[in-house]
Amino acid sequence: MQIDILTLFPEMISGVFNSSILKKAHEKGKYQYNLVNFRDYTTNKHQKVDDYPYGGGAGMVLTPQPVFDAVESVTRQNSTKPRIVLMCPQGEPYSQSKAEDLAKEEHLIIICGHYEGYDERIREHLVTDEISIGDYVLTGGELGAMVVVDSVVRLLPDVLGNESSAPEDSFSTGLLEHPQYTRPADFRGMKVPDILLSGDHAKIAAWRKKESLRRTYQRRSDLLEQFDLTEEDQRMLEDIKREP
Amino acid sequence: MQIDILTLFPEMISGVFNSSILKKAHEKGKYQYNLVNFRDYTTNKHQKVDDYPYGGGAGMVLTPQPVFDAVESVTRQNSTKPRIVLMCPQGEPYSQSKAEDLAKEEHLIIICGHYEGYDERIREHLVTDEISIGDYVLTGGELGAMVVVDSVVRLLPDVLGNESSAPEDSFSTGLLEHPQYTRPADFRGMKVPDILLSGDHAKIAAWRKKESLRRTYQRRSDLLEQFDLTEEDQRMLEDIKREP
Repeated sequence: MQIDILTLFPEMISGVFNSSILKKAHEKGKYQYNLVNFRDYTTNKHQKVDDYPYGGGAGMVLTPQPVFDAVESVTRQNSTKPRIVLMCPQGEPYSQSKAEDLAKEEHLIIICGHYEGYDERIREHLVTDEISIGDYVLTGGELGAMVVVDSVVRLLPDVLGNESSAPEDSFSTGLLEHPQYTRPADFRGMKVPDILLSGDHAKIAAWRKKESLRRTYQRRSDLLEQFDLTEEDQRMLEDIKREP
Repeated sequence: MQIDILTLFPEMISGVFNSSILKKAHEKGKYQYNLVNFRDYTTNKHQKVDDYPYGGGAGMVLTPQPVFDAVESVTRQNSTKPRIVLMCPQGEPYSQSKAEDLAKEEHLIIICGHYEGYDERIREHLVTDEISIGDYVLTGGELGAMVVVDSVVRLLPDVLGNESSAPEDSFSTGLLEHPQYTRPADFRGMKVPDILLSGDHAKIAAWRKKESLRRTYQRRSDLLEQFDLTEEDQRMLEDIKREP
C-alpha cells in the first residue's frame, strides 16, 4: 500500500511513523509512505496557502490551488487510482468498518487541514472521502490522519505478529473487551478473580463472554443494539440486568 | 496546566508537542508537559512491563506495578490533585464537552496502553477517567492522548490567537460548519457562490446558517436531535427538507 499524507506540519507526524508497529510494518515493506508539504506546491509568491474567507468571518481558509496541484502530482506518480481522504469535522464518523474498507486500497492520499477550514471546492471536486475521527475540535487534521494510518496498516496482511490479536479487539467483535488480569495474583491486596486461576477453560470463556456483555451493556448500550446476540448471550444479558 | 503522559513510546509523540499551536502554547507558558516512560518504573529485573493474561488468550497485558508506581511518583511531584485518564477502547466516547471539562483541571495524567490491554486493577483502583477517542482499533493510546492534549490545550485561556475561532468551530456550536470559500473567485471554472461576493452581511449570515443546518441534516442528523433549534432554524430546516 502507498500512503501519501498532505500536511503543512510533516514534523508533527514523522515520529509516529518511526515507532512501534508502523515502523516494523514499514521495515517489512508492508506499506510505503510519503509526507508531502503542500506549501511546496503553492504558486503564491509569498508561499501562502490560505486566505480570508469570502463573506467575512474569523480565521483563514485553505486555498484550492496548492491542494489540487499536490494531489494531482502525487496521483501522477502512481499507476493506481487513489482514495483521496479529507480529514475534517464535517466528515463521516470514522469506524472500524471504514478502516477495513480503506485497508483494501492500493493507494491512499490523506489531506490534513489546518486553520479555519478548506475551500469548499476541494470537498466538492477533489476528494473521494471525508472523515472525522470524532466530535471534538482539533487544531489540524494530522492526528486524524495518523489515526487512519495506524488503524489501516495494522489490518494489512502479516503486519500483526500475533495473528489472533486483531479480531479479538474491542470493535472488531462488536463488544467491549472483557477485563484482563496478569501477574501478580495479589497486588497490594487487590486480587485476580479466582475463576481465572482455576484452569477451567470452558468456565473462563463463559466468564469472559459475560463480562464483555456486562461492560458493553453498562458503558455502551448503543453497541449492543447493533450486535447479533446468540440465545446464550441473551440469557447472560438477562442475568446481568437482574443483578442488583 | 501540568500534563504528564505515561507511555512506552515517548518518541512517538514528542513531534506533536513541537508543532503548531501546542508548541506556541508551551513557549508562552500556558502548559507544561512531561513524557514519562513507565518502563523506567518497573521492578522486573528484565525491565518487563507486560505479562501473559491469567486464564489464557492471545496478547500481553500491562502489569499493574509500573503503572501504579509511575502515577504515584508523578502525583507526588505536584501539589494538585490530578485527573488520571486511561486511554482505552472501553472508555467513555470522547467529546468536545469532555475536553471543556478537562480544560478546567490543573493537572492531567494520561496513561497510554499498548499490547492487548491493561490489568483490570489499573482501571478499578487507579484512574479517574477512561476515554476512547472513537470506535476503531489503534495500536496504542498515544494518538488518543495527543487528541486529548490538543483539544484541551487549545481551550486554555489566551492560547488561540484569534479568540473568535474556538466557539465557531464545528461541535462547539452543535452544528457542522457551513461551506467556506476563499480566493480565487473562479478556480478552473469552479466558482464561489454569488451571495458570498454580494457584501450583504445579513444575507450572508442567513445563507451560512442555512448551509450549516443543511450539512448537519444531510450528514449528521444525530447532532440535530441534540440541538436547540430557534423558530427561524426550524423554518430553514423545513425549507431544506422540502427541496428536491
